[in-house]
Parts: sequence; structure tokens; C-alpha cells
Amino acid sequence: MQPSARQLRLGVFVQTPGHHVGGWRHPDADARTPNLALMQHIAATAEAAKFDMFFLGDGFATGYGEHPSTIGKFEPLGLLSALAMSTTRLGLAATASTTYAEPYHVARAFASLDHLSGGRAAWNVVTTAYSKSSAVFGRQHPPHAERYAMAGEFVEACRLLWDSWDDDAFIADKHAGLFVRPGSLHMPAFEGKYFSIQGALNVPRPPQGHPVLIQAGSSGPGQALAARIADVVFTAQNDLSEAQAFYRSVKAQLAECGRTADAALVMPGVMPVVGRTEREAREIFAELNRNIATAQAFTVLSERLGADMSVHPLDGPVPAVPETEHLKSRAALLIQMARRENLTLRELYHRVAAARGHLLPIGTPSQVADVLERWFREGGADGFNVMPPFFPGQFDAFAQCVVPILQERGLFRADYTGTTLRDHLGLGRPADRRG
Amino acid sequence: MQPSARQLRLGVFVQTPGHHVGGWRHPDADARTPNLALMQHIAATAEAAKFDMFFLGDGFATGYGEHPSTIGKFEPLGLLSALAMSTTRLGLAATASTTYAEPYHVARAFASLDHLSGGRAAWNVVTTAYSKSSAVFGRQHPPHAERYAMAGEFVEACRLLWDSWDDDAFIADKHAGLFVRPGSLHMPAFEGKYFSIQGALNVPRPPQGHPVLIQAGSSGPGQALAARIADVVFTAQNDLSEAQAFYRSVKAQLAECGRTADAALVMPGVMPVVGRTEREAREIFAELNRNIATAQAFTVLSERLGADMSVHPLDGPVPAVPETEHLKSRAALLIQMARRENLTLRELYHRVAAARGHLLPIGTPSQVADVLERWFREGGADGFNVMPPFFPGQFDAFAQCVVPILQERGLFRADYTGTTLRDHLGLGRPADRRG
Repeated sequence: MQPSARQLRLGVFVQTPGHHVGGWRHPDADARTPNLALMQHIAATAEAAKFDMFFLGDGFATGYGEHPSTIGKFEPLGLLSALAMSTTRLGLAATASTTYAEPYHVARAFASLDHLSGGRAAWNVVTTAYSKSSAVFGRQHPPHAERYAMAGEFVEACRLLWDSWDDDAFIADKHAGLFVRPGSLHMPAFEGKYFSIQGALNVPRPPQGHPVLIQAGSSGPGQALAARIADVVFTAQNDLSEAQAFYRSVKAQLAECGRTADAALVMPGVMPVVGRTEREAREIFAELNRNIATAQAFTVLSERLGADMSVHPLDGPVPAVPETEHLKSRAALLIQMARRENLTLRELYHRVAAARGHLLPIGTPSQVADVLERWFREGGADGFNVMPPFFPGQFDAFAQCVVPILQERGLFRADYTGTTLRDHLGLGRPADRRG
Repeated sequence: MQPSARQLRLGVFVQTPGHHVGGWRHPDADARTPNLALMQHIAATAEAAKFDMFFLGDGFATGYGEHPSTIGKFEPLGLLSALAMSTTRLGLAATASTTYAEPYHVARAFASLDHLSGGRAAWNVVTTAYSKSSAVFGRQHPPHAERYAMAGEFVEACRLLWDSWDDDAFIADKHAGLFVRPGSLHMPAFEGKYFSIQGALNVPRPPQGHPVLIQAGSSGPGQALAARIADVVFTAQNDLSEAQAFYRSVKAQLAECGRTADAALVMPGVMPVVGRTEREAREIFAELNRNIATAQAFTVLSERLGADMSVHPLDGPVPAVPETEHLKSRAALLIQMARRENLTLRELYHRVAAARGHLLPIGTPSQVADVLERWFREGGADGFNVMPPFFPGQFDAFAQCVVPILQERGLFRADYTGTTLRDHLGLGRPADRRG
């Protein structure tokens, strides 16, 4: 079939052993950790299926009963640097918080990854939501609004650092004795409320100019930041009409910032549960839900809603939850969903444990492809960040069975046409600062 | 020949295009930057020659006229993660400062590198000496004594973080539903003057227990820190009797800390200039010195001595330099050398530009091997950190021509006998915290 002019984008959100809380216990999950061979398998599978990017979340888990997928990990930037060696086209995206870090360190790490990978780096700009993360840094956790103000300054400082040198600054002219071209340095000078920078980055300008910037906050300040800086917007949506409203809102805010509608791509998360038959898919999902311990359910719910849920009966209605600074927008989305669908606490926790509020299509490869196509064609998404319930089984199934259908339908590339992640995503390259 | 019981250790200090200020202009230097292919070549060459480790310095160059080898680089941890994929035995050591970083981030990055490399990570623990680095972090630069107090706390916190989990914590028992073994978590709690940590590392315990710790400060506080925490001590020495005194001092301080003499290895830097004949080696060195611009010479000298040298005549004596907080011990070593050998400022600058105060043997492979053997046998060194004047030419010459002589003399391994860097260095593995 002829490719449609507009192509959908695919990322794989790699959170091993799986995004579903019970996923790691499935027989087709590889739960050994840390697991470089599994990471290399996922990257190779994603590249063979022509995915846009391999995406890693991040957090500072502290050992207090977190989800298995958030402990026992590799540090994201180091892992992606290693995976850059076994891949040639796949985009490599990592989350890094702006709340407990220095712009110089973060700008340097992503610039370096962009060089190591030949222009395939992306940075998911987040603020650290969990207040207990502050304890590993010995600091007070800043409130929501302040975290977003910090994030805005942080990104601005990083952009100045990436632009320290012109693209062709390092000429290494042995005869003239000029290692750098005179005039090619643009000394960053940034004076903000939270960060201050005087001095250049000691990494040449990244091959992509700037790494691709991703933003994943759905709150008001999160959306406002995305409209200003994001190339890609991740979001959690499980209802098409709400996804359409979010999509329209992001595109409208882009216009307000003087950016075109295609300057930032909206990519909701999706947890596909794929079976050879619909019945097999439903059985996989039921098995996953049986593998969640009740204590774990309460932990996950309490974390997500920002209040202790273990005092409420599991088969009663979802209680009212006071609004907190903690995970503001995500918690509100979950409560809305519970009210809309009249869920019990147990039902909500199955949804949360499964997909944390993301789209959750369950069925055959073509049924899953139908859902993705509909969201893509009807203005709900520019693409998806695929969150398999467990690795490698369900990701292999998606890559090998769902992607070929999307390709046959002309919705997804049959091969890469460029070399950088900006090429894959159809994004422009920011120019350097020469006059 | 029979191997001697005591074997010397070799690191390659990788600072491309070269350690000599004029090195990058040599025809056999590859001065393109950043240069992954060159890094992979150096790593492969070092591993083929059975080196203990590949070592990266680090700094936060700011674009104010620094040495070509300190700008236009990769970020060290990401680069080593990439090189872990193309090597299987070579130790991978990176410098990371304790002055402008968080213990959690640093502990995590080195733990992750140790996993990615199968137990080959080392951390060179430094404090940031150049006060202008503070400007890229928008902070006041702490004085020398405070920086070392911070470094001590920083390492202590990192050790607690590495010991968060027992070695076999991540059991992933699907049947029992236990991702981690109960009781395997030892929650770090550290309350210092400069750092405070509550919470576990989200990386499993490193394969080596703790990464190998290197310490490179030669000042009093630097030596005291080394005696407490270091597995390897780097130092700049250019006179055998002074090197012997330093060696004895380190070993005596180890004993005072209740550690055995072989618990920490003393490895001075050495810049070998290797030719097929002594005359060829001398010509290479002369050519290197011709390639230094005078302005660059003054910049380097001023940086190293912590005072503006451009106001003094190049062919006059080395002026008195007020002691500053800046690079205390290294500056003092250079001034002592100048007084001892009655050097002019120009002569000192040739020495500094060449080897920054390190041992500088110039000659045939066997002449260079003679110097290393003498220092090793006569109590000046347990091994060397090799600092080629330029890459890849002079490193290839050392690896291919000098190392085989050291092997023939039974001073250096003919092959690796273990898999981890601790194995190579003959160091024990710190036990986990189970009762």
C-alpha cells in the first residue's frame, strides 16, 4: 500500500521486566536484573522493526517497596551509550530530572550521547515528582510550581551550553596551529533565579544541534513547558475524546508560542496486550492481574494517588483524595477515570497496575493495530510510546506482529530514510549561533 | 623468563590528541575530535597489550584558552560505557569530581558502569582544583581543606550506597512473587556536614563490590584521603629518590590506617617518548617542543603555577610564586624541580608542556623499559599510568615495542588471569553487609 503522507511514530518505553506490576512473573518475562543482554535484544528488535526510539524512564527509587521495574537498574545515560554501539539508526532517549541535577552535567551527558550515537539522542525533561527522592540528595523537595520554573531555566541553560561552539569549531589545523577556529566560541552566560552558568561546554556541538527534547508532564505548567521547548510530548490517555482534546490543546499552545503544529509530536503511551486470538490476549491479561499481590496493589495505588489507600476496602468505591503537590495531574486523571467508569478500588488498581492510566488495547495484532490507527487518524496521536506489559515476550509480539500490519497499511515506515532521530521524527535541526 | 612474583601494573591515561601541549600537531597524531574510532583503537591496543586499565581524566573546561586536550571531549562515563562493549578485560577508569556533584548520581553511574563492563570500573576521586570551574555551576569555589573534607564524606556516602543491596538481592522468584530477597536491603543513612543521604541506590551491588578507587592528590590532605580509601594512588614524580620517598610515605600511611602495604598501588604518571633509535626519540621530542606557541606556554604555566607568568621574561629564572589554594601540591612540585635543576621559565615550560612534572624517559623501547624497571624494582612505583605525548602514534609504539620487553623480562603479564579490574590489580573484593 502507498504510504500515507503523515507517518506515525513509535517509541518503545523500556521498563524491564515489564510495565505491568505483575508482568515480571509471566513465564515469557526475563526478570534477571540488571540485564544487558535483554536490553540489547530489545534495542535490536526495535531497530529491526524501524522504531523511532528506545526510551528509558528514570527515578531515584529508595528501596521503600517500589515497583520491581524501578529498582535494580542501569543508569540510563550509560546504558544508552552502550546500546549506541550495537545499533545504528534507533533513537536513544533517556529521562533526566531537572530537580536534583546541574545543567552542565546534564547538557554534557546528552551532548556526548548524541556524538557517540551519531545524532540519535533525546532527553525527556522531567521534574522529580516523588518527594521522598529529596532524601537521597539531602534537600527539601521543591513544590510543583517551583519545580517547573526550575525546569524552564534548566533547559534554557542547556541550550546555551549546547550552542557554546559552532558546528565546525574543532578544525585541528596542525599547520596553522589552530585547534579551534577563531570566533567559533559563543561563551554561555546565564543568570536565572535557580541556575547560573558562566563558561562553555567541553563537548563539541551535538550532531543534531540539540538533542531531541521530550516533555511528559500533563499538568498546566507541564503543557506550557512542552509548548515552549518540546519536540515530542508524551502523555497518559485512555479515552479517545480526551486524547483528542489534549492533542488540540497542545497544538493550540504551540501556535501561541509561534511554533508550527508539526513542531512537536504528541505520543501517548500504549500498553498493547497481544495474543494470536482475542481470547489468548484476554487470558494473558487475566494472568497478569492474578500475579499482583494485594499489598503491592495498595502500595502502587497509594503512590499514584498521593494518599494511603490501604485503609479503604478494595471492593468499595474509590475514595475522595485531597489534592497534593505530589503527582498532581496524573492523580487527577486516574480519579476522573474512576468516576467516569464507576470503578471500585480493586478495578482502579487493576487499571493502574496494568497501564498506569494509559491506553490498553487487548487483542489480536490487527485489533491492536485498529486502535492505534483510529487514534492516529482521528486526531488523538501523532504516534505512540509502546509500553509492553512484560519483556521480551510482549514486545517481541508487538514488533513482529503489529508493526508489519501498520507498515502494510502505509502508516509506518518500511525502512529508515535518515540517520538521526530528528530525521526519523521529521524535525528540523537548530542552527548554531554564528552571525 | 619466569615472571617475577611482583608484577607491575599499567594504565593508559587517555587524553587525546595528546598529553604534550604540542602533541596534537605531530603528523602521527589524530587530532579530529570527538573521535570514537580513535578511542576504540586505543582501548583495543591497550587490551591486546594486556594493560590493567584505560584511564580518563576530567574537568570542566570553560573555553578560556585551555589545552586542546581538555575541550571538545566526550563525557567520561558515557564514553567508558561505550568502550565496555568493544572490550572484555580492560579496566575502565574515569575521573569524577566530588566538588560539584551529588554522591547519589556518582555512585549510581560507577555502579552501572561496573555492571555494564562485568566488573571493570574504577573511579578516580578528585576535588575540582580550578576555581573558575565554579562559574559553570554558579557557586562559590570551596577552599582546599573544605574540598578534601567534602571528598571524604562523598566517598563514605558512595560506599553506603553501593552496599544498599546484598550481592544476591535480586532473586526474581516468579513462583514466590519475590523480586528481591527479604532482608537483602540495607538502607543507607548518612548524615555529614556536606552531604546527607537517606535511601537506597536503584542499581544492584556492583560486580566488584565497590568499583576500584583511585586517588591522585599529592597534597597532605590528598595523601591522607588516599591512605584511607584508595586502591590505586596516581602521582606526578620525575625524580627517583623523591618518588621513593613518596612511595614510602604512602605505604606508611596505609599502615597507620590499618591497611596492608599492598592494599594500595602507587602508580606515577610517565610520558615515554619512544623512537627506533635514541636519536629518533630526541628528534620527536624536539619537534613536539617546536610546536608550542609562546602564548600557549604562558597560559599553561600560569594555570599550573596559579599566577600570571606572562609578565616575566621566558629566559630568566623561575620567579617566586605565592602559595595559593589553587593546585597547591602540584605547583610546589614544579617550583621545587625548577630550583633543583636551575631551570629558566622557558625550560620549565618545556617540561610542563611536555609531561606536567611527570617522569619523561626519552629513547629506544629498551631504554624506556630500563627506566620503568628501575623505578619498579627500586621502590619508586608499583606500576605506571602511561601518558603518551600524542595518540595514536606514541601509544602504539609503547604498546607494541615497550610492553613486549617488560613481558620478556617477566615484569608484566603475558595474559589476563582474571576478568575484573580488581583481579588484574590483585585487590580484594569488599564483602556485602549481610550479617
